[in-house]
Amino acid sequence: MISFKNDYSEGAHDIILERIAEENLMQNVGYGEDEHCKKAAEFIQKQLQCFDCDVHFLVGGTQTNLVMISHCLKPYQAVIAADSGHINVHETGAIEATGHKVIAMPSGQGKLTVKAVQKALKIHTDEHMVQPKMVYISNPTEVGTLYTKKELQELHNFCKEHHLIFYLDGARMASAMASKYNDIAFSDYPKLVDLLYLGGTKCGALFGEALVMFQREWNEDFRFSIKQKGAMLAKGWLLGIQFEALFEGDLYQKAGEHANAMAEKIKNAIAQKGYTFQFPPCSNQLFVIFPDDVLQKLEKEFLFTIWEKVDNHHTSVRIVTSWATKEENVQKLIKFIQEA
Amino acid sequence: MISFKNDYSEGAHDIILERIAEENLMQNVGYGEDEHCKKAAEFIQKQLQCFDCDVHFLVGGTQTNLVMISHCLKPYQAVIAADSGHINVHETGAIEATGHKVIAMPSGQGKLTVKAVQKALKIHTDEHMVQPKMVYISNPTEVGTLYTKKELQELHNFCKEHHLIFYLDGARMASAMASKYNDIAFSDYPKLVDLLYLGGTKCGALFGEALVMFQREWNEDFRFSIKQKGAMLAKGWLLGIQFEALFEGDLYQKAGEHANAMAEKIKNAIAQKGYTFQFPPCSNQLFVIFPDDVLQKLEKEFLFTIWEKVDNHHTSVRIVTSWATKEENVQKLIKFIQEA
Amino acid sequence: MISFKNDYSEGAHDIILERIAEENLMQNVGYGEDEHCKKAAEFIQKQLQCFDCDVHFLVGGTQTNLVMISHCLKPYQAVIAADSGHINVHETGAIEATGHKVIAMPSGQGKLTVKAVQKALKIHTDEHMVQPKMVYISNPTEVGTLYTKKELQELHNFCKEHHLIFYLDGARMASAMASKYNDIAFSDYPKLVDLLYLGGTKCGALFGEALVMFQREWNEDFRFSIKQKGAMLAKGWLLGIQFEALFEGDLYQKAGEHANAMAEKIKNAIAQKGYTFQFPPCSNQLFVIFPDDVLQKLEKEFLFTIWEKVDNHHTSVRIVTSWATKEENVQKLIKFIQEA
Amino acid sequence: MISFKNDYSEGAHDIILERIAEENLMQNVGYGEDEHCKKAAEFIQKQLQCFDCDVHFLVGGTQTNLVMISHCLKPYQAVIAADSGHINVHETGAIEATGHKVIAMPSGQGKLTVKAVQKALKIHTDEHMVQPKMVYISNPTEVGTLYTKKELQELHNFCKEHHLIFYLDGARMASAMASKYNDIAFSDYPKLVDLLYLGGTKCGALFGEALVMFQREWNEDFRFSIKQKGAMLAKGWLLGIQFEALFEGDLYQKAGEHANAMAEKIKNAIAQKGYTFQFPPCSNQLFVIFPDDVLQKLEKEFLFTIWEKVDNHHTSVRIVTSWATKEENVQKLIKFIQEA
Repeated sequence: MISFKNDYSEGAHDIILERIAEENLMQNVGYGEDEHCKKAAEFIQKQLQCFDCDVHFLVGGTQTNLVMISHCLKPYQAVIAADSGHINVHETGAIEATGHKVIAMPSGQGKLTVKAVQKALKIHTDEHMVQPKMVYISNPTEVGTLYTKKELQELHNFCKEHHLIFYLDGARMASAMASKYNDIAFSDYPKLVDLLYLGGTKCGALFGEALVMFQREWNEDFRFSIKQKGAMLAKGWLLGIQFEALFEGDLYQKAGEHANAMAEKIKNAIAQKGYTFQFPPCSNQLFVIFPDDVLQKLEKEFLFTIWEKVDNHHTSVRIVTSWATKEENVQKLIKFIQEA
Repeated sequence: MISFKNDYSEGAHDIILERIAEENLMQNVGYGEDEHCKKAAEFIQKQLQCFDCDVHFLVGGTQTNLVMISHCLKPYQAVIAADSGHINVHETGAIEATGHKVIAMPSGQGKLTVKAVQKALKIHTDEHMVQPKMVYISNPTEVGTLYTKKELQELHNFCKEHHLIFYLDGARMASAMASKYNDIAFSDYPKLVDLLYLGGTKCGALFGEALVMFQREWNEDFRFSIKQKGAMLAKGWLLGIQFEALFEGDLYQKAGEHANAMAEKIKNAIAQKGYTFQFPPCSNQLFVIFPDDVLQKLEKEFLFTIWEKVDNHHTSVRIVTSWATKEENVQKLIKFIQEA
Repeated sequence: MISFKNDYSEGAHDIILERIAEENLMQNVGYGEDEHCKKAAEFIQKQLQCFDCDVHFLVGGTQTNLVMISHCLKPYQAVIAADSGHINVHETGAIEATGHKVIAMPSGQGKLTVKAVQKALKIHTDEHMVQPKMVYISNPTEVGTLYTKKELQELHNFCKEHHLIFYLDGARMASAMASKYNDIAFSDYPKLVDLLYLGGTKCGALFGEALVMFQREWNEDFRFSIKQKGAMLAKGWLLGIQFEALFEGDLYQKAGEHANAMAEKIKNAIAQKGYTFQFPPCSNQLFVIFPDDVLQKLEKEFLFTIWEKVDNHHTSVRIVTSWATKEENVQKLIKFIQEA
Repeated sequence: MISFKNDYSEGAHDIILERIAEENLMQNVGYGEDEHCKKAAEFIQKQLQCFDCDVHFLVGGTQTNLVMISHCLKPYQAVIAADSGHINVHETGAIEATGHKVIAMPSGQGKLTVKAVQKALKIHTDEHMVQPKMVYISNPTEVGTLYTKKELQELHNFCKEHHLIFYLDGARMASAMASKYNDIAFSDYPKLVDLLYLGGTKCGALFGEALVMFQREWNEDFRFSIKQKGAMLAKGWLLGIQFEALFEGDLYQKAGEHANAMAEKIKNAIAQKGYTFQFPPCSNQLFVIFPDDVLQKLEKEFLFTIWEKVDNHHTSVRIVTSWATKEENVQKLIKFIQEA
């Protein structure tokens, strides 16, 4: 079956595998202290137009979130997230396992608002409650929507004012950056957030995530946290070499563009057919509301995630494209939808 | 410089990279539920001659230890290890970070004895102290020595008798299995330990560790623990495909054989020269005592780890070989030692 | 000022202080293994008409909750609570600090329903999410309401069916038992919940909480958990002697009766005056909606907790009575309300 | 039987019970924000001749240690202690349960030396190991010995130089202060340590420990840590009133004097009889080496703790006196020893 289940079904861009193969028998220093990690960090700094930030490379998303968040918070401090946020829902309590409460606030279309953060602060008044200290958002969100620059700016301002650390999980950042709905440049991020995670796993890499710290205080002893949480890869150069490849040219950008282009085609076919979307389609994740009889047919040929019952006769599903999605498979899906 | 610093300076066996490249654009189910993980588990079961054990694949060693140990222990339970054990010394308190004390007992040449475990039990008598519940050993040990079958059998028997979980960290198991000093077959392990970690990272894989559970009770909900600790790789098939390659034939064995053969050559040259060893050389790690003036010269050409000052004029160093160590580099080192 | 702020402003029933004074220079075995704890446990067993349950004594409420919950749950398991539940709101993330997520579900008048628990189970489907394993409720609830026997029975049945541990926090149980709205006997509890915490601090004791386990499996090694969390009182007999006094006769019952009687008087005065209640007044906590001008006057003479703004001109406040509330103070408050 | 098993078999000084009884029906603000806690803090400040330190009151020793230590350390930081230290041995892994390794160093007669701390630093070199950040000592030690002012000064200097937090557990400080071997005044402590715990439970109080912070940075948000760990007593005034009584006059000092005087008598009788001590007797704990036949007789009449087998015919036992030890019981023990 053809899968539109997620954006990590395939491996990596050919060029990434080639680079790894070329380097394979070279001797590299361990644990991320090699030249490739250094170079990759420089490329990312350049991309962000920020040359005094720190960059670390980790293996996966839950890992990145738990290492970063537990590194920053004191035992009694908590992180505020949208109730749909990855750390609240899909990480098996990874943050709580490091001792910290996730304060989940209601979100509209996956996005956390200043108002929601404000409310979280207001109800946490003294030492009988946790102390909110960090704001976590995802961009794109878990339902494929995007923050505007204005929204980020407002969240940023509020965080500064209230001494909150502002952390952005960009597991699918390539898709965000390539979206026509996006109005945030890479070079805006240093002024918008404190901590930025640029995803690799879902953006063309075999695996790996880059963590960028614009507030250098968090870099102190951060490698202790990486190691303690089992997140320090012995052959760290494997991460470095991948992000080198992604960011020395436009590979990262292109990964997002291809994923979005494929999603756009599917979106158009769906819209033409008259089906609607549960969340506005902005990136490489589509949340489509299908009539149940159509869905039944689709499920025989394609893999995707059932999201939820919308009413008695309709169900929403999540369709995801990636840098690796084949145009021919998209055409098959479109044809199928048109004829269903 | 030529590095004998560790066994993770290079990447992976060519065949492993080839396999990944072949599979690269295939669509695989995520999170280790793919066919490659299944196949790899079967090959490992066959290698161990044990068909009702459970096999999981994780990314790194500290990660494997912390996920496994925290999964098994109740909050007040502790794990007994040699004071030189990896979890006690070199994992930045990863086990303690999950809430558990490591009871470190003095070891002889890196090995934990029944006597030491017995003593640990004896001094932990009631609820005012932690409750020892697991015994952790490494084979090969952190100083390159090997347990005999008899030693493992005794530890096993003691553990059974005292309801202790017996966990063996085999990060360098390929070297152990290929050692002429080894008298333990793969098929012995199911009867000797409860939990077995077969290392990949240091044994020919790009990265990855296999965790085998002979006591099936530990398998229940184990995937929750993997996920919670940030150890579940989205593209889990990357791990499966590597262990498939390592265990479907004799790749794993050969990785160990090459590493040991290289170490043996160095060992012989050192012995001929009259230098001695801090620990008996049994596997791919040599702990050599060099006169300081010789050491000074060596350091200009080769990388290795300074272990400790032995006396005013001698220092021990750790020299490590691997599946990837080039014979020509070994010859250079030998020549250098002979002429130093 | 006269305080109606809480039910722990005063010390203990005279008889309790007398008992402590009598015993003061006796030598007792430490850590709760004394005769008083044993006796107290027997009185509680008799009160509950259940002679094979285990009873432990702890110092405070947050402590009791965190020791009990962390003792029962595996690392990836979570506890379901009403969003107004004490463990979710007012314990500074104590449960999360032991590694566990509190799954907060919307509640009606402070009560958790089967439907809410059902929903919590439904949205936690696999290993990418925490595993709900315990249901926590408070009776009386944090807003003074009471569960009916039928409601508890339904929750109990649902928990049994879904292998959930059912834990009831009865910090103010004396008030619940003495309420005319209560239809649950002490002897019903062994059949209704797995774990029962009978509060002392707010029910006539100087301090201390009793924890009753009807499922004996949780008793195994429980003293390790008590000690590890810093909850084992050296002079444990102090706890035993207090619960002995509370439960050998009707002291506990009377503590609740007095608190409720005082609350009833205030309630009637408020109702006569035409003010309303935010939550139905059932026990020793009243949540009264006052016009803001009345409130301003009240605040000058009495202490209580501002709960929340109800509308532009009204605010709800929490008024609490206790075993120690003086009738004369109640009369002063009533007079004040009548004349305000 | 007469117990010399510990110094917490009895309750509290009469005056403390009286004070509690007097205050019993007063209304006090909760959670340690009352006037008694304030007053008690002032008396302690005066005793220490240090008026800008912060003072908090907690219930028990393990609790005090775990709250304080977990409050100060970052996740990857560890505390250095003597291997005989209470936090290493007798707190059921309470520190590890908050995520931190206890680095246990060999001790001579229960004392940690600069040399041992130095060694601990030396073997913890990088991010693959925990980061030592705190030094924990007990005075008197767990084996009844005392630090000299010079020893503390040296430890202090070393800690300052290496940015280590220096924490002193004085669970039995009254006995230390009253010892003729002691050369440290209360007013020396502010210059000698960063954090000081003055024990109440074993020094005349019913229960309770005072925590003094000379480095005010640790006071920030400390109440969040107290609450989160279940250590915030609702009726906090109970702690305040006790420490008020202990420190407004010389009650604390006298508690230690009596305990020591009783120990001295026993010590002299033992020495006259020719028995020896495992550790030099300096405070209210004696570690006596008895011939096994004598021990057998003693055990029939008196309670104490068997410490360890010294040789085939001798065993050491711990004999403890307290503020409450009755002279007549001491005389009985002395007589028994003389005649044994």
